[in-house]
Amino acid sequence: MNTTCPVPRFDFDAITMGHGGGGLLTQRLLQSGVFSVLGNELLNQQHDGASFSLEGKLAFSTDSYVVSPIFFPGGNIGDLAINGTVNDLAMCGAAARYLSLAFIIEEGLKMEQFAAVLQSIGQAAKTAGVQIVTGDTKVVERGKGDQLFINTSGIGVVHRNASIHHQHIRPGDKIILSGKLAAHGIAIMSKRKGLSFETDIVSDTTALNHTVINLVETYGSGIRFLRDPTRGGLASVLNEVAGLTKLGYNLDQKAIPIDPQVEGACEMLGLDPLYVANEGIFVAIVSREIASDFLRTLHQHYNGEHAAIIGEVSTEHAGTVVAKGIAGGHRIISYLAGEQLPRIC
Amino acid sequence: MNTTCPVPRFDFDAITMGHGGGGLLTQRLLQSGVFSVLGNELLNQQHDGASFSLEGKLAFSTDSYVVSPIFFPGGNIGDLAINGTVNDLAMCGAAARYLSLAFIIEEGLKMEQFAAVLQSIGQAAKTAGVQIVTGDTKVVERGKGDQLFINTSGIGVVHRNASIHHQHIRPGDKIILSGKLAAHGIAIMSKRKGLSFETDIVSDTTALNHTVINLVETYGSGIRFLRDPTRGGLASVLNEVAGLTKLGYNLDQKAIPIDPQVEGACEMLGLDPLYVANEGIFVAIVSREIASDFLRTLHQHYNGEHAAIIGEVSTEHAGTVVAKGIAGGHRIISYLAGEQLPRIC
Repeated sequence: MNTTCPVPRFDFDAITMGHGGGGLLTQRLLQSGVFSVLGNELLNQQHDGASFSLEGKLAFSTDSYVVSPIFFPGGNIGDLAINGTVNDLAMCGAAARYLSLAFIIEEGLKMEQFAAVLQSIGQAAKTAGVQIVTGDTKVVERGKGDQLFINTSGIGVVHRNASIHHQHIRPGDKIILSGKLAAHGIAIMSKRKGLSFETDIVSDTTALNHTVINLVETYGSGIRFLRDPTRGGLASVLNEVAGLTKLGYNLDQKAIPIDPQVEGACEMLGLDPLYVANEGIFVAIVSREIASDFLRTLHQHYNGEHAAIIGEVSTEHAGTVVAKGIAGGHRIISYLAGEQLPRIC
Repeated sequence: MNTTCPVPRFDFDAITMGHGGGGLLTQRLLQSGVFSVLGNELLNQQHDGASFSLEGKLAFSTDSYVVSPIFFPGGNIGDLAINGTVNDLAMCGAAARYLSLAFIIEEGLKMEQFAAVLQSIGQAAKTAGVQIVTGDTKVVERGKGDQLFINTSGIGVVHRNASIHHQHIRPGDKIILSGKLAAHGIAIMSKRKGLSFETDIVSDTTALNHTVINLVETYGSGIRFLRDPTRGGLASVLNEVAGLTKLGYNLDQKAIPIDPQVEGACEMLGLDPLYVANEGIFVAIVSREIASDFLRTLHQHYNGEHAAIIGEVSTEHAGTVVAKGIAGGHRIISYLAGEQLPRIC
């Protein structure tokens, strides 16, 4: 357990309905643990909302986290909720600044677990350089939730050099993946009831903002488009952008970085890693001119060392994603019809 | 049903796990219904976040809504989620501008119900004058949620005349309630399993932003403090502010506006209306000098016609809330120890 954040101390064992009532128990929950871990000048005002000034163009994003189980190899629902929203803002070319944090807790959640999640939240916020400035806590009856759901929304400042929009994508642009594919989904899967298997695979959950803002600063409008391939994986991101741009997206399967253990687990489970969720990598579509410099810079960042050019945008087979396989054959990568791995984030 | 918003048309009967998977079904859910009701220039970009410019001091707020049942007399979880966050921003003296919207849907929710909620969301956003610019949809298995939970977070622009902070409260300030107490909580209660009783009582859910911003514009720093007494009711708001300011808060019970039917229902259920949730009124603590003018202006607004001065701030019995009863006796109004009405908002 990371010790750089204060450890919350609660004077009760488990969450009761009263902790969501807005009365004395809610106050005690907040005062005895939440504020000690997450407190800052804005949050400590304890008003209905936080007030601040921000200069420039803003980005605003939201995500609810319902991952099951809430603790998994490499992280838990707490750091996932911070990193996820920080990353969504980074994909807009924005440096996350202020986050909101809203809990929906199932009655009976052990305070030990809640404290561990809170501490991860505090640590992740610190690492990402963001402040949690406003929040909410609701409690639902046993059997009406699943331990803990978290919503984070975030506000960031868009970098002045950012010019990220799918409309800027051109034929000839390169598709770059910032790291190894499919670790998050497989890490969750390895802990699922009835599916447990021995593995050292850990979730890739991490904050990408520092890396991304540095790239945006350097490469500006050479970066056409950014997206983190979470739910639905790389295949869904590229299908979405293929649909929006009416261009073709060609992948070179053998260029896609993936850990051999993750690849093995995918084979064992019958999963295509292109559809598996990630929480610490991003797809960048960049101009041909900057592609190799961009890659070189990315390689210097701790979370970009495995980055690779994995494909190219083309005018052929407009609106679709095509992968050239290891053996040389081509296949169309379409949207997943249903859900491959539910409750992954 | 209000017909000024487009009616969403879904080509399936109920939510399945796949609708939360980020693949084809998620796309279909969004394209076939959500965007048609809520679409605007920013939301339609379909990026991970929305980007925009806002001048001035900002306010940021979040709330998750877990009300049960999701449809109740006078509203549903959809308009509640919009009005609630719009009102939280208004209590900061801010005009809400952009909202995020995140659904956690229980597998099996009927599309008919989801469509009705969406339509209420669209209508409430229109009435409040806010845009939904970014969102998220998650689905959890049957028995791991309760039909529908909604999180809304919002960004507003703080009015230049606003100077709202509990530190500005002074002895002699007047406590004003903008409307009748306890309607929301009793409306929910009347529909609870095993508690149904005949009543015409409807929730007071409404957007307060237009009224509040008009008052802030006119009365500026004469308005010391604003808060909407939702969960925990009027008693919790005043206890919180009493604790923060170390001043005494004297209420005149007979001055508090309440509908006789609501009062009767509270008596029948053994509930103290001071602790019952509201979703369409606010408490204003204002300087003695402006109190009667403020009240006169408030009376001219459709959601302020029943406003009344209900008490005064004093240096006596510091840190507590005291109510003078109908018969003249005094009682201390403390925080509710537990939860009076769970899942009220």
